[in-house]
Amino acid sequence: MAKAADVYFQVDPWKIIEEGFDPAYSRVSESVFSLANESLGVRGCFDEGGSADSLRGAYVNGVYDVERLNRSYRGIIDQTHFMIPAADWLMTDLVLDGERLDLGKSLFRDFKREMDMRRGTLKRSFVWRTASGKELRLTFLRFLDMTHRERAYQRVAMEPLNFSGTVDFVSGLSFDVIHEGYKKCYWRDARVEAFENRLMLQSHTTLSGQEVFAGALLNMPPDAAVRKDGQTVSLRAALPLEQGRETHVDKRVVILFDGQAGGALWQSGMAALAESERISLDEALAAQQTYWGDYWRTSDVQIEAAPGNEAVVAAEQQGIRFCSFQLAQIYSGGSMRHNIGAKGLTGEAYNGHAFWDTEACCLPFYLFTNPQAARYLLLFRYNTLPRALERARMLDCEGACYPLATLNGDEACSLWQHASLQLQPSTAVAYGIWHYVHVTGDRDFLYAYGAEMLVQIARFLASRVEKGGKTGKYGFFGVMGPDEFHMMVNNNAYTNYMGMRTLLCAAETLDAMRHDQPAAYDALMKKTSLREEEITRWREISANMYIPQGERGLIEQHDGFFNLPHTDINSIPVTQFPLYEHWSYDRIYRSDMIKQPDVLMMLYLYNSSFTEAEKRVNYEFYEPRTIHESSLSPAIHSILAAEIGKMEEAVRFFGFATRLDLDNYNRNTREGLHVTSIAMAWANIVYGFAGLRSDGEGLIFAPRLPDRWKELRFSVMYQGRVISIRMERKNTIFRLTRGEPLRMRIFGAPYTLTENALLIPCP
Amino acid sequence: MAKAADVYFQVDPWKIIEEGFDPAYSRVSESVFSLANESLGVRGCFDEGGSADSLRGAYVNGVYDVERLNRSYRGIIDQTHFMIPAADWLMTDLVLDGERLDLGKSLFRDFKREMDMRRGTLKRSFVWRTASGKELRLTFLRFLDMTHRERAYQRVAMEPLNFSGTVDFVSGLSFDVIHEGYKKCYWRDARVEAFENRLMLQSHTTLSGQEVFAGALLNMPPDAAVRKDGQTVSLRAALPLEQGRETHVDKRVVILFDGQAGGALWQSGMAALAESERISLDEALAAQQTYWGDYWRTSDVQIEAAPGNEAVVAAEQQGIRFCSFQLAQIYSGGSMRHNIGAKGLTGEAYNGHAFWDTEACCLPFYLFTNPQAARYLLLFRYNTLPRALERARMLDCEGACYPLATLNGDEACSLWQHASLQLQPSTAVAYGIWHYVHVTGDRDFLYAYGAEMLVQIARFLASRVEKGGKTGKYGFFGVMGPDEFHMMVNNNAYTNYMGMRTLLCAAETLDAMRHDQPAAYDALMKKTSLREEEITRWREISANMYIPQGERGLIEQHDGFFNLPHTDINSIPVTQFPLYEHWSYDRIYRSDMIKQPDVLMMLYLYNSSFTEAEKRVNYEFYEPRTIHESSLSPAIHSILAAEIGKMEEAVRFFGFATRLDLDNYNRNTREGLHVTSIAMAWANIVYGFAGLRSDGEGLIFAPRLPDRWKELRFSVMYQGRVISIRMERKNTIFRLTRGEPLRMRIFGAPYTLTENALLIPCP
Repeated sequence: MAKAADVYFQVDPWKIIEEGFDPAYSRVSESVFSLANESLGVRGCFDEGGSADSLRGAYVNGVYDVERLNRSYRGIIDQTHFMIPAADWLMTDLVLDGERLDLGKSLFRDFKREMDMRRGTLKRSFVWRTASGKELRLTFLRFLDMTHRERAYQRVAMEPLNFSGTVDFVSGLSFDVIHEGYKKCYWRDARVEAFENRLMLQSHTTLSGQEVFAGALLNMPPDAAVRKDGQTVSLRAALPLEQGRETHVDKRVVILFDGQAGGALWQSGMAALAESERISLDEALAAQQTYWGDYWRTSDVQIEAAPGNEAVVAAEQQGIRFCSFQLAQIYSGGSMRHNIGAKGLTGEAYNGHAFWDTEACCLPFYLFTNPQAARYLLLFRYNTLPRALERARMLDCEGACYPLATLNGDEACSLWQHASLQLQPSTAVAYGIWHYVHVTGDRDFLYAYGAEMLVQIARFLASRVEKGGKTGKYGFFGVMGPDEFHMMVNNNAYTNYMGMRTLLCAAETLDAMRHDQPAAYDALMKKTSLREEEITRWREISANMYIPQGERGLIEQHDGFFNLPHTDINSIPVTQFPLYEHWSYDRIYRSDMIKQPDVLMMLYLYNSSFTEAEKRVNYEFYEPRTIHESSLSPAIHSILAAEIGKMEEAVRFFGFATRLDLDNYNRNTREGLHVTSIAMAWANIVYGFAGLRSDGEGLIFAPRLPDRWKELRFSVMYQGRVISIRMERKNTIFRLTRGEPLRMRIFGAPYTLTENALLIPCP
Repeated sequence: MAKAADVYFQVDPWKIIEEGFDPAYSRVSESVFSLANESLGVRGCFDEGGSADSLRGAYVNGVYDVERLNRSYRGIIDQTHFMIPAADWLMTDLVLDGERLDLGKSLFRDFKREMDMRRGTLKRSFVWRTASGKELRLTFLRFLDMTHRERAYQRVAMEPLNFSGTVDFVSGLSFDVIHEGYKKCYWRDARVEAFENRLMLQSHTTLSGQEVFAGALLNMPPDAAVRKDGQTVSLRAALPLEQGRETHVDKRVVILFDGQAGGALWQSGMAALAESERISLDEALAAQQTYWGDYWRTSDVQIEAAPGNEAVVAAEQQGIRFCSFQLAQIYSGGSMRHNIGAKGLTGEAYNGHAFWDTEACCLPFYLFTNPQAARYLLLFRYNTLPRALERARMLDCEGACYPLATLNGDEACSLWQHASLQLQPSTAVAYGIWHYVHVTGDRDFLYAYGAEMLVQIARFLASRVEKGGKTGKYGFFGVMGPDEFHMMVNNNAYTNYMGMRTLLCAAETLDAMRHDQPAAYDALMKKTSLREEEITRWREISANMYIPQGERGLIEQHDGFFNLPHTDINSIPVTQFPLYEHWSYDRIYRSDMIKQPDVLMMLYLYNSSFTEAEKRVNYEFYEPRTIHESSLSPAIHSILAAEIGKMEEAVRFFGFATRLDLDNYNRNTREGLHVTSIAMAWANIVYGFAGLRSDGEGLIFAPRLPDRWKELRFSVMYQGRVISIRMERKNTIFRLTRGEPLRMRIFGAPYTLTENALLIPCP
């Protein structure tokens, strides 16, 4: 593994801290200091803007616009959609002695920025020294309300250190925000109003026809001047400041996006604004602290260091908390109208799109901590099934082809080689359905929604599969596997295997459904015009799928992989990452270097279907060829490494996974956080070190505590139960803290878990 | 072969005739009726425009503009260039009784359009019947001067059949012309003048900074009104017409594009316009007839039918003449500033770009009919070598990578999968240099220009080649072979073989040069900073190149080809052609169906290096898998079929090749003519039926007259000689009509050719 940490932030158990501002890390910090509450998100950018490098982004989940693309060939999308920045509610301007505050130009000292994960706040403080010699201590505080998700707060505190006098202060709201990639504003025809320290805007997007209300309440002086300019509205006042005394400007914000438009939305927005006035910023801050306190009480993962490992474990503890915090900010099942973007709401790279990472990487976290959120994520796929049916038609196929990248269910990936060749989204949705039902036992969901998706995905696969001219076996030709460094290959083992399992799962689901709910079965057959011959063919294909596996169990990633030229990935200088930016595009695709697990991904997802020996031989072959230029990669390697007893590697990859963004391992954190890594860091602990397996019979554990840890504590939810796990050096203690007793397997042996501590010695 | 003729035009030995106008064929006719004189080109569109479907295109060779593309990944171009329509000099408007002539709406009869290949003219006549009942016979004549290539002519003849009176007549020039694909005009800031029946315009392109002068002389009445509107200038007059008498409006046009700009260009344009006034349109027409008479005397290919085959052979005779005519119009060595566009100057598809077809397909025609033109085509590559060096850098390679598609030497292909993965342009340039020197013996060219190109191409290949992890042999990974229906494959046999030959050719050229011209050799080594080790490595790579050939000589097109799913190409309905328009893009790439010869292309180019048995086994395997969705394809199959004794197939493919556009086999002639097919139709006869081989020792013939022909006559030039060949049923008569006696091989036996007839009986 040729990647290295780029350490910048301070280590602290509960905070992310930046001391002193380095403009070269400006965008990295903005990403890391992102806040969100599932509905709203904002990068950690400077409230006052300025000339330092910045991606100024405040986002609303589900808000996007559309661009037409040149029509090229059939099956290649001719329009795409992407998340756009919405109302800028942090807008602030300070002028002192004619000098505008701009940390790219102004003199300042004692800069400190910290995100507090127990309070869900971001605070930034520094002393501004003007050219005229005045010193003003400034503290900016912001947070997004976790319970009233349309609400956001900003507080600007000012304390003159060596003068008394006025500062020229502007605070506003603006829809005049620019999408960085397309270099334009997508908001049109805002309604702009202001009165009595209230600012209100409502605007709509250019082509997608979405409408958003933004309002703010301020405690500015009554004589503050209103300025309306385009889609921007602000208040300006000369604030009197007194030496040694702190003055606050508080801004309470409402951003409403609920499907309404016009007067109805305006009315709801005004009502929400009025409602928000019922509590002060300090009260909201207290409520926020309570919310996060509750969260950590049930969801914290606690690591204690073995003697001599305090420093590295402290970084890991911070890393896993950062992941957990960001994930909880980004999705907690608040709505089935949106999915989980690859960058969450933390940047515009990947356009806010959700990928199959949701089912493959994020779902386990929700399955074991918030099953309702898992269900909602799958219902998002059910609600977008009509789009997937249409997409399959575009590809000359039958059934449903789920999009590689989407906000609304339409394929939005304009790189045809990814959109048309990756079958992973469809097989991942099928896997997600199967996994969800397998873990939760929710067969109502399966028969009401899951089966229909499975039928259409199976149909798609059956129309896309072909028979090899020489082998006579079924396989998928012209595909791109999860690896993504090999395009348009044949018989990608992952794709073939996932296809086989999906077809079989669809057939078996229908068999069970015919038995369990014959009326629903008949209705589904009718609704989908499904013929019995199709189901028979799915079984036939499954039985004759080509999975090339050598004698020692080594699986060839795809036809011809073993003859590819070898790249020594350790010889690649770290300055060449990410390769997509530094290498000629085609050069990336020509060797045995892989971007992320492919064969290993399949061994992870269907873990219980492969022997430990198979995992070892494949891990040992593919790991040294993997460049991990995907946030998916390290955690999956860590989990498999732990399983095959390579604990040192497992721990090293765990560090990589939990601190991927904090230490900017991929050198692209400036674009936003790797949300899938965030989810996989959790899986890394639960699947890797606690040895949870959820794809076999019932619940399975095999704890393996890394040497440098003294103790690991966390909880999981399972079918109405809460199970707490405390791994110590010599034993692991399981305990049921809620729900009925449960039979489960630990180190291969059966146990019944009750509220009494179950102490399992390490083997 | 699933393709079928779509017969529309009349068969005639010297003309292409359309009787009656079918709007559904409007664009096909426009392409077929294209005229050109290498410098200028114009589609056969209606002078008066109108509402019938049309691509109105008048082009100037070498005139292009530029569009910036979104920067995506390294090695993918971020701007492209493309031929744009230039001055519309046919602009004509007729209004009679308030009704505008528009063949999309007007009533008319006796429509006839004919291109006369002995005169190089296009004539269109019909009787227009107005709603008011007036009948006006109209005849439009146009031609492009083959000797003064800046000149073009138009004559509009009008004869009232049932009335006398005036017609409102407008004739003009315009740079307000729209590029169909980008839907915009690329011309800016025209200077517009008009006086005494003269119209003058000069305009420049938006980004490429090219400037073109257009002038016209008309014989309109002196009181005609001048109208200037934007970049358009015209004369309007009410022309008095007399029943039964023909009135002409003649327009003599000059379009000048010679690298000058501003006042200098204007002055040259005005001078050229004045010069053109020295002869009348009728005199120019007579000169045109003389030019084409001379051309046909030396370049005609004459076929006589065996009894009973008159109809089909008449179509073939017309087809081969159409090809010969179009090729002579499109390139005859007038300039080394431009190359041969895939569509010549007959349409905007392929953006006017030249491809590697020039060296692979067009060069033989010029080698044996106009060697100076062949030299110029290679000098175009020499002059653009700096661009190819830069392109290789973009691809993280060394040396020179020639562009897939270009007008000016820069890569213009925005489809990265073609531009970055096809190594064919570079190996074809190397092949062209070798072939040119091999046939002409022009070693001065080789040492002055060819060797430098060979060095840089060899360097490129040596930096792109890699060693297979399993075979340990060299090969090219991640390429697209000539076939183009298989993307990013490994060890494409064609690419590997061409690479091997190119590396060897470069090394051998340098050896010979060191011996022949040591000073030039030293200068080249210095100029290119070439190290001896590089040459040694080229030989080592050549000696260890992977060419997968089975026992019976069957070559696998690329790794894994034999296991691809089979497509029965005969099962594809003709309505689905071209597949690129009807099939999902990715679907095309998944089976053993190939677009055009790939292994067979290599057997064609290096014909003498393979046995007849090898050709047979590969032909029999690949031909049934070939959809011929390229104009390259049929002629190459015909040539190989003839060689292995499949004369019936050879003849069938010949019909396809010569009439590809006349019978719209690929259903896309509307976009322009397939110029490579035009060149390959000539090669088809000379290589296929006369059995010429130019890649072995000296000149080689093996005549094989198709059964349905009684006689075939044509000539070739070879090292200062002219050789006439007359193939009859029982004998072939060779005769030297110019130059020194020549030793050559016919049916494998040596002969000396003199001015006496050499009669060779058929074996």
